[in-house]
Amino acid sequence: MVRCDTDVDERDEAIGIRDGRIAYLGAAMNAPDASATLDLAGRLVLPGLVDPHTHLVFAGSRADEFARRMRGVDYHTIAAEGGGIASTVRATRNASDAELLDLAQTRAEALREHGVTSVEVKSGYGLDTENETRLLRVARELGQLGIVRVTTSFLGAHAVPPEHKGDRAGYVRSVIDEQLPAVVAENLADAIDVYCDEGAFSLDEARAILEAGRAAGLRVRAHVGQFADLGGAELAAELGACSADHLEQVSDAGLHAMAAAGTVAVFLPGAWRTLRQAAPRAERFRDAGVTMAIGTDLNPGTSPTSNLLLCAALAVRDAGMSADEALLGITRHAARAAGIDDVGSIRVGAHADLAIYAVQSASSLTYALGGVRANAVMLGGRMVVERASRSLW
Amino acid sequence: MVRCDTDVDERDEAIGIRDGRIAYLGAAMNAPDASATLDLAGRLVLPGLVDPHTHLVFAGSRADEFARRMRGVDYHTIAAEGGGIASTVRATRNASDAELLDLAQTRAEALREHGVTSVEVKSGYGLDTENETRLLRVARELGQLGIVRVTTSFLGAHAVPPEHKGDRAGYVRSVIDEQLPAVVAENLADAIDVYCDEGAFSLDEARAILEAGRAAGLRVRAHVGQFADLGGAELAAELGACSADHLEQVSDAGLHAMAAAGTVAVFLPGAWRTLRQAAPRAERFRDAGVTMAIGTDLNPGTSPTSNLLLCAALAVRDAGMSADEALLGITRHAARAAGIDDVGSIRVGAHADLAIYAVQSASSLTYALGGVRANAVMLGGRMVVERASRSLW
Repeated sequence: MVRCDTDVDERDEAIGIRDGRIAYLGAAMNAPDASATLDLAGRLVLPGLVDPHTHLVFAGSRADEFARRMRGVDYHTIAAEGGGIASTVRATRNASDAELLDLAQTRAEALREHGVTSVEVKSGYGLDTENETRLLRVARELGQLGIVRVTTSFLGAHAVPPEHKGDRAGYVRSVIDEQLPAVVAENLADAIDVYCDEGAFSLDEARAILEAGRAAGLRVRAHVGQFADLGGAELAAELGACSADHLEQVSDAGLHAMAAAGTVAVFLPGAWRTLRQAAPRAERFRDAGVTMAIGTDLNPGTSPTSNLLLCAALAVRDAGMSADEALLGITRHAARAAGIDDVGSIRVGAHADLAIYAVQSASSLTYALGGVRANAVMLGGRMVVERASRSLW
Repeated sequence: MVRCDTDVDERDEAIGIRDGRIAYLGAAMNAPDASATLDLAGRLVLPGLVDPHTHLVFAGSRADEFARRMRGVDYHTIAAEGGGIASTVRATRNASDAELLDLAQTRAEALREHGVTSVEVKSGYGLDTENETRLLRVARELGQLGIVRVTTSFLGAHAVPPEHKGDRAGYVRSVIDEQLPAVVAENLADAIDVYCDEGAFSLDEARAILEAGRAAGLRVRAHVGQFADLGGAELAAELGACSADHLEQVSDAGLHAMAAAGTVAVFLPGAWRTLRQAAPRAERFRDAGVTMAIGTDLNPGTSPTSNLLLCAALAVRDAGMSADEALLGITRHAARAAGIDDVGSIRVGAHADLAIYAVQSASSLTYALGGVRANAVMLGGRMVVERASRSLW
């Protein structure tokens, strides 16, 4: 047993940890004997943060493409030159497994700096059986390193790869009939995901892919309504998806379907800012009874960020989430969105994953704009980050 | 002589440093003999960044006020309860000099993490002669610590303090007749500043204050057009101001006046995001020939950020600056906005202030959203930050 002493509303409280899980929660004076005690008084102790939406496994940079886009060069022009997702697919296919793991590890460590201990990782830059399974193997391997917990989603339907240009139907068939069975055979994915939007996959294509994944035993999630509302939120709800993500353009009917199904909305502020889009309005989701979470969407095209607390700070500012909703959105509700158990809240039986901050108030985490790192991070009862810095806010 | 070896377009280049200044710039093979050599090949070397707009000296947090505002509680309600600027004034007046210096030092170190080596620091949370001079003394003392270079602005006209409520004219007179002479007598300020806006000081009040400061030998700058266009940009231009800051609501006439006078526009993305405002459009400034800079506006009410690179990344996304304009906006053009010489560019004779990054491209600094810290920072030829981290972007 390890004891973390803290204070809640001026009372001395303790978190007891045994075998990597929380074994006691309550008054410090009643806590069982412990082999070691950590004094966390004056610190903010949160469950380790959960990032429910990342594209963590890729190679190559798109910094120069970003600079061109920000100068007004059209995305289609860039895509026609071989840029956009295709350039990341090229760089990723050309990278070795070791390179991909090394890059993913650096990104996972960067996420953890801010307190993240669980990460959803999608494939989607392989776009053929060999490379999609390779990316998911790298993601599984990342999960074995003890940096963060990893849950994986198979996103073969991220884009139509160059070699299938003009043959969308053929590519969708290959996702369902070749990629998915290979992924399932090796148990490489926990969820099936699809990019259902204008310029990506249609509602019918998304349905076929998600239903195949669900039939194979995978959880369901989907990218929907980022650019156009194709009815993806209703589809996700119908299939019992854990989450529907983006949702800038979702209809009221979509929101009501999500609320009824318990499908969590994942907001991705890095993407809406980088794409210069209007944010979704949290008020609509709140009024419809939809649970809200926040992710980094870490990816090289539209959301080059590893700072989940910045994303939460932007979700409050841009989308109108409250500071409390945002904290739930990167902990408990993010865990629900990612479909993973035993993380995202501090309770007896949960993994002893903690994010500890030297801030002046819980609101400080979203008040500060891009400036808060965790002072300490515990993963399964093991201290994996420690830093003696003071927080400004 | 210390030599920093770097590479520019594949050629071996060197920066030679003597007595804290840049003494040589050119091919490494022609560089003078050096007592030490730093190998910076593969790194991005920029002039130390300049933050041209901060309110660095204050005490107290407004995290909980932020959380309430984000839930929709009206700012006037909060102000009527003694919140808003008044709460920071109260906490600041109650803090000791040592506490204020300690807080300012922590903030300066946080700015420097991202590569900042020069900082403009305003008073404005004292709002009486004793406390305004005290804040500026703390800012001057901060400048002596060797963390960053500091230039100071006297902002007695930040708000009307509670004890002058209902007596604006009396407060303006005290700024001009009491505070300013005391500030000048001790040489505490390099510039005069005023908050000219709806809810702050009128154009006539701003003119009286700025003219008095200018007559006393101070540089001129002003907060203008954040909420309403009172003609502050034209006034700043007329008085030959180094900068006019905020400018969300500036008119074309204001822009043309600024261009003609060489008054730099300072964009403050932390404030426009935190206040949920539309950003100014860089295109208008570019077309009018106005030079653009970017600041953090570091302050506890409307811009709780110490991340100048995040502000640059937001200026590109929100205001439509190009990546190159943003880099100039936090170096050369920020130095002009702050009115300080010998910083903001790498040239022979300038201070040897350098910010060094392990990024993949110069565009990476604005492509990354909230994620880049400097790998090394040099201040006057002295290495003040060193870190072995890899950059994600």
